[in-house]
Amino acid sequence: MTEEIGVGMVGHAFMGAVHSHAWRSVHRFFDVPLTPRLAVLGGRDAVRTKEAATKYGWAAAETDWRALVARDDVGIVDICTPGDTHAEIALAALAAGKHVLCEKPLANTVAEAEAMAAAAAEAATRGVRSMVAFNYRRVPAIALARKLVAEGRIGEIRHVRAVYLQDWLSDPESPMTWRLRREHAGSGALGDLGAHIVDAAQYVTGDLITGVSGTTETFVRSRPDGDGRGEVTVDDAAVFLARFSSGALGTFEATRYALGRKNSMRLEVNGTRGSLAFDFESMNELSVFSEDDGSAAGFRRLLVTEPDHPYVGAWWPPGHLIGYEHTFTHEVADFLTAIGGDVDPAPSFADGLRVQRVLAAVEESAGQQSTWTTIGETR
Amino acid sequence: MTEEIGVGMVGHAFMGAVHSHAWRSVHRFFDVPLTPRLAVLGGRDAVRTKEAATKYGWAAAETDWRALVARDDVGIVDICTPGDTHAEIALAALAAGKHVLCEKPLANTVAEAEAMAAAAAEAATRGVRSMVAFNYRRVPAIALARKLVAEGRIGEIRHVRAVYLQDWLSDPESPMTWRLRREHAGSGALGDLGAHIVDAAQYVTGDLITGVSGTTETFVRSRPDGDGRGEVTVDDAAVFLARFSSGALGTFEATRYALGRKNSMRLEVNGTRGSLAFDFESMNELSVFSEDDGSAAGFRRLLVTEPDHPYVGAWWPPGHLIGYEHTFTHEVADFLTAIGGDVDPAPSFADGLRVQRVLAAVEESAGQQSTWTTIGETR
Amino acid sequence: MTEEIGVGMVGHAFMGAVHSHAWRSVHRFFDVPLTPRLAVLGGRDAVRTKEAATKYGWAAAETDWRALVARDDVGIVDICTPGDTHAEIALAALAAGKHVLCEKPLANTVAEAEAMAAAAAEAATRGVRSMVAFNYRRVPAIALARKLVAEGRIGEIRHVRAVYLQDWLSDPESPMTWRLRREHAGSGALGDLGAHIVDAAQYVTGDLITGVSGTTETFVRSRPDGDGRGEVTVDDAAVFLARFSSGALGTFEATRYALGRKNSMRLEVNGTRGSLAFDFESMNELSVFSEDDGSAAGFRRLLVTEPDHPYVGAWWPPGHLIGYEHTFTHEVADFLTAIGGDVDPAPSFADGLRVQRVLAAVEESAGQQSTWTTIGETR
Amino acid sequence: MTEEIGVGMVGHAFMGAVHSHAWRSVHRFFDVPLTPRLAVLGGRDAVRTKEAATKYGWAAAETDWRALVARDDVGIVDICTPGDTHAEIALAALAAGKHVLCEKPLANTVAEAEAMAAAAAEAATRGVRSMVAFNYRRVPAIALARKLVAEGRIGEIRHVRAVYLQDWLSDPESPMTWRLRREHAGSGALGDLGAHIVDAAQYVTGDLITGVSGTTETFVRSRPDGDGRGEVTVDDAAVFLARFSSGALGTFEATRYALGRKNSMRLEVNGTRGSLAFDFESMNELSVFSEDDGSAAGFRRLLVTEPDHPYVGAWWPPGHLIGYEHTFTHEVADFLTAIGGDVDPAPSFADGLRVQRVLAAVEESAGQQSTWTTIGETR
Repeated sequence: MTEEIGVGMVGHAFMGAVHSHAWRSVHRFFDVPLTPRLAVLGGRDAVRTKEAATKYGWAAAETDWRALVARDDVGIVDICTPGDTHAEIALAALAAGKHVLCEKPLANTVAEAEAMAAAAAEAATRGVRSMVAFNYRRVPAIALARKLVAEGRIGEIRHVRAVYLQDWLSDPESPMTWRLRREHAGSGALGDLGAHIVDAAQYVTGDLITGVSGTTETFVRSRPDGDGRGEVTVDDAAVFLARFSSGALGTFEATRYALGRKNSMRLEVNGTRGSLAFDFESMNELSVFSEDDGSAAGFRRLLVTEPDHPYVGAWWPPGHLIGYEHTFTHEVADFLTAIGGDVDPAPSFADGLRVQRVLAAVEESAGQQSTWTTIGETR
Repeated sequence: MTEEIGVGMVGHAFMGAVHSHAWRSVHRFFDVPLTPRLAVLGGRDAVRTKEAATKYGWAAAETDWRALVARDDVGIVDICTPGDTHAEIALAALAAGKHVLCEKPLANTVAEAEAMAAAAAEAATRGVRSMVAFNYRRVPAIALARKLVAEGRIGEIRHVRAVYLQDWLSDPESPMTWRLRREHAGSGALGDLGAHIVDAAQYVTGDLITGVSGTTETFVRSRPDGDGRGEVTVDDAAVFLARFSSGALGTFEATRYALGRKNSMRLEVNGTRGSLAFDFESMNELSVFSEDDGSAAGFRRLLVTEPDHPYVGAWWPPGHLIGYEHTFTHEVADFLTAIGGDVDPAPSFADGLRVQRVLAAVEESAGQQSTWTTIGETR
Repeated sequence: MTEEIGVGMVGHAFMGAVHSHAWRSVHRFFDVPLTPRLAVLGGRDAVRTKEAATKYGWAAAETDWRALVARDDVGIVDICTPGDTHAEIALAALAAGKHVLCEKPLANTVAEAEAMAAAAAEAATRGVRSMVAFNYRRVPAIALARKLVAEGRIGEIRHVRAVYLQDWLSDPESPMTWRLRREHAGSGALGDLGAHIVDAAQYVTGDLITGVSGTTETFVRSRPDGDGRGEVTVDDAAVFLARFSSGALGTFEATRYALGRKNSMRLEVNGTRGSLAFDFESMNELSVFSEDDGSAAGFRRLLVTEPDHPYVGAWWPPGHLIGYEHTFTHEVADFLTAIGGDVDPAPSFADGLRVQRVLAAVEESAGQQSTWTTIGETR
Repeated sequence: MTEEIGVGMVGHAFMGAVHSHAWRSVHRFFDVPLTPRLAVLGGRDAVRTKEAATKYGWAAAETDWRALVARDDVGIVDICTPGDTHAEIALAALAAGKHVLCEKPLANTVAEAEAMAAAAAEAATRGVRSMVAFNYRRVPAIALARKLVAEGRIGEIRHVRAVYLQDWLSDPESPMTWRLRREHAGSGALGDLGAHIVDAAQYVTGDLITGVSGTTETFVRSRPDGDGRGEVTVDDAAVFLARFSSGALGTFEATRYALGRKNSMRLEVNGTRGSLAFDFESMNELSVFSEDDGSAAGFRRLLVTEPDHPYVGAWWPPGHLIGYEHTFTHEVADFLTAIGGDVDPAPSFADGLRVQRVLAAVEESAGQQSTWTTIGETR
């Protein structure tokens, strides 16, 4: 086993459970230069945090994230809290010289994200690394898609078509959560789901979105909340058109009202030499069209489980699927590898900021009759 | 056999071939109140029109569409020409008391479409019928989709997602055609493909689009044309956001650059009780999700080949597919039934005008930085 | 238009309707050397035959098939009756010098099929042509599959997996039909459905089945029949293992009890260089795997609608599907082409006999504890 | 955390890696009555076993399985070795009062399996539990399939169609392994893959196979082996027909030569009320047809990721897939739950014996011209 590095993780809900699994398992499958030690779990409620620490295998529990950040046995701070706390924790951790892994979206505002990206850039000069957790980049099929584009096998990109469809709000009587309050979540489907497809589209194409036209909607404006009803202050759905710097056209949709679509993050790319199609509900598959196939051309359903596919060599023989949490194991492996190799991991906080700017432009356009809105600054 | 009615058809290219088949075959499968007689085929070139008439089974050929319209043995005029000639022929035919079936898009401009809709409304008072040939309404799966929505099985509509993807212009060196010249085609992918999905989306949901935000693109601005190069004066692709009067959100895309997608006219509808998904490349199938299925819910792949599905009873046993041209046979059957029953068929010229207004609004929005543009008048 | 040839067709049920359409339409789409004239329709009931003749476009009707065969205006006899009458009609027609198209299975017994094959061979020496109507050979995807195998792109065949699944007998109370009586139908699912997959498997692989082990089952032994119940005297389902002369292994299943499968004639072929998969419920598609695709290999879903795919050039642009009846139009086109070109069409009566021998071997094996049973003679 | 129980595992290849992960992770996701402690890993080579123990998280390593079995800190013996060693280890462990989890197939011969089943039955009287590792029973979709059958939603079963297709031997020059030697593996595709589909078919239907007719094939009889070539002494593929005690017909195929099918373990069941279809290459999905859906019936693609689906509640929100190794985590959870609850887990060694008898009957039939062979004794 390699040298250990202590991890302090803040937050123990859904993301906390998945990240815990990744930190526990990564060195069992990947040759990482540092072996993570699950040093301390942070949470607001002492009892529940202690229980979660025991369940997920953390050595200690803390209710004060500042104490967690300050601990000598913590080399990495992993931020799994709602978006409104990301900036504060990340800035403190970077200042304290801790490597930071931060859940997406990077922040709730562009201003926060700018501060974080600046701090990350400064920290990098001190050898302190940071990464934003766009885990879908670590789906083997998506990493393979990027590789095929980068190799030129898709040609010049003409179209990107990305949707992220869920349905857990279809029922107008499903209750309030923090995700439906702007002060905690920043936005609704846009930041939660739209952030993933913006990042994935830019990652796969290797290109940046330069402008958008969008609109958002809140279909159900109040929901059961305890004994009364709470006001929904975020979008239920967001749709937008986009252009990439290459001239490619994009269409994007994020919604929590697509009944029957549980987690359908779909990405299609059409180029001058080939096309790609992906759906996270079949996450081990990538559909690839190549005009080189001539009259025997058709979309190939690749099972992305071959040993030479990205990340796959660490797992099982061909045809044996992996699941959702593997993307986090891959993410953590890449992060540890970057720390160990003293290089900056990707996606950086600057990448997270870039996504944030796109989301902000969508909201700005939506507030101005969908007028085309450019993304000011490129990374 | 029922009483005969003479048909005069103008145009004998792709649409002419398909319409000929429909006129020849309809009474072999459907109990229509009038039996079509293929009286006369119109075309500009005498030799080629005569050849086509023989091949497709027309009794005579005419090079002057005015002569065709004027013939006593013509009771129906079927217009299969490019969009720039629709208005003139249709107006003359309606004035002459002939029933008119007109290919889509109804016209190249809103003004033409308005004149046609007005003439059709006036002619209807004289018992003269008219219909625009949105044949995709006659795909059994799409007709079934409308029925499911109308029965309330999908609930209140939240989302419509419609694309029409082709790839025949992917190659920048594929040559010029009339479809790439604004003066003949009116627009590019927008009018050719976008018209179909706008009509289908409105038909299936039973709802109207009230506003759009869009952008268009011409990826390849000149193409080989004879010995030189011709300028492409229409859009290669059009993307737009839409709202329906119910408040549902729509996203639309029409393109001829989606490599590998040959004729992928896809429609998805998400409602509060169920969802629908369709792809014309699998035109005999409809995917239906119903929340009534509880924890055994999933998208059902219906093979729309049961005798009680729309139009299917006229054809083969369950599981025996039908093809593209059947939609035209259905269209002609419906048209003859309406004429025989002395009622107005659908889609009317007013429906065609409605689609035209949406397309015009997309172009207007595209010319104004994608600013939201409302569709002035409902049908 | 080319020279006419008169067609006399016996039988006007399901197959009669489909064949009528093919005879009416073939020359509108294919350049055939002879134009069929729908001269006379044969049936047992005078009134119903006359009605069918009118509906389907036949010039005359006959209740005596011998009179139909004897007519001077009949050059082709098309046999669409149940299997127990095939031999008698075909032998008379061939003797009378008429070209014969005979529905499958060729006959109800090997002895009948032998007599028919012998008569066809003799007639061929006189320029009289005969063909058995295995229409699935004329599915473009199946014809393309054969082409890919013949070109060596699949390599040496290891496995064939063929099922033909229907479900119209799932309900034990669905009524008796002639198809459930041995004296008319010869056998049940075996002859009706099994015949198709045996022929298709041999056609696609270009190889012959040399032995089988099988078993059959009649799940429901009596069914409603008028006021009483009738005894089912054929198999409801047949399953068998097979070996091809190349050494490939085959598994076959024919059933009318596969609930939810309406017409699922599926064929999979695995070779040393590639694999093929087909399902008639998606008849415009062929799935092709090629090991040449390397780590980007996956089953390609080919839409078999390209102009250079078999038969497709006669129809619509890429992505516009064809349906079930098109296979009969192709069949008739091939038959007319063979007659006009003075060559023997395929599949010949000898091919039909070969299939019959396989079916008989399955029944023999089933009657002998599934003991392996070889097919005596190759074509 | 609950009381600990020490685990000693023999074997550290593919199965060892997967089992290790399950033992390490099970209590992080499931509320198990005993928390496994990874006490000792057994292997033949001291260095490699020690390395594997470190990598997979085992506290100690042993090269003598008898010593491992004898250790006081071992309460469970987990057998992950080739089939020729199962009986000896299992018998010793049961005799020593250790609970035993044994990889499939249970043994290489019926005689061994009989001895093991007898020993397990005897041990159970002492409270010592045993289970055979048919992990596919723990695929949520397969467990759900069994539940649907048990609830009567599929009705009376008519057909079972099961294949297990892999392609890793397609290349005739891929090298020898222990899996291709009868003395180690017992049989080839039959025992390795066929065992899974026999067990799954019996598990899902809740029914037993009573007789079979089969044949086997070795396509490539020698393969590269070190500097020379080794003889392949097992089957490359096995195909067989079967009958269940209910009268249902089954077809089975196991092969390593289905090019392009990486791990396609497919199961289809047709009943009088509904049908099921599953493919392990899409292991999070189950297709369900229900005749109750009427004319809106079609195969529903269920994403088996809902909290009320078997095992799923322990994992992620709907639409977030799980992978191959999860089936082992489920298996271990069930085993620990049975031990803690003092009840016999399933599948028992008797179930494993039952599968062994079916496999032996297939080989017996194959050796006797495929003659129907009954399975002597039911469990």
